[in-house]
Amino acid sequence: MSNINDIAKQFTEYYYQAFDADRRNLAPLYRDMSMMTWESSQIQGAQAIVEKLVSLPFQKVQHKITTVDAQQSLPGVNAILILVTGQLLVDEETNPQQFSQTFQLVENEGFFIYNDVFRLNYS
Amino acid sequence: MSNINDIAKQFTEYYYQAFDADRRNLAPLYRDMSMMTWESSQIQGAQAIVEKLVSLPFQKVQHKITTVDAQQSLPGVNAILILVTGQLLVDEETNPQQFSQTFQLVENEGFFIYNDVFRLNYS
Repeated sequence: MSNINDIAKQFTEYYYQAFDADRRNLAPLYRDMSMMTWESSQIQGAQAIVEKLVSLPFQKVQHKITTVDAQQSLPGVNAILILVTGQLLVDEETNPQQFSQTFQLVENEGFFIYNDVFRLNYS
Repeated sequence: MSNINDIAKQFTEYYYQAFDADRRNLAPLYRDMSMMTWESSQIQGAQAIVEKLVSLPFQKVQHKITTVDAQQSLPGVNAILILVTGQLLVDEETNPQQFSQTFQLVENEGFFIYNDVFRLNYS
């Protein structure tokens, strides 16, 4: 399982660093078949997903990862399922919000994001 | 997408009602190939998973679902990815804990749980 956990750790660190630096950097991680659910909004395809991410109403954003759990996905498919929990700090807010995000990565000349589900956990 | 969301809603309602009534009721939802990660513990197989769930150190438990998001999983596989967020109240505690749980359901003469990742979100 260590290889899956290593990939998950590397992926999530890269993803949130890229997100926090410039959300447009995330485009290469998605493909046309990729799906994202962002707080119940369903979006498909790399271009529409990145447009959605860029349109989010904050300028500065910082993700802090709390946990990353990974499992091998379905048999016969080279895919990894990841559940991330963490904290999100936007703009000049001082109280972080908790978030949960599930990714399913599929390997096809490198891993890309097939499924992406994001939720804030309101207290 | 409505069918996927309907299945996800029915599944999660059934799952948490069964969990809260008697965790042994969950055995038929898992198979030998099923994987569960419970607060970083990795367990495989229906029997080991249910033993783990039954061994959890609380007598009374109540799940309250906050959100359920579902997506079609990988192409060519009849599978559904679900991210649940909610609150968990155990024994005589009065402060609920937040949780996140990701399921991947696979259809094979009915849906079963292939992937299950559970995390409490500590405040």
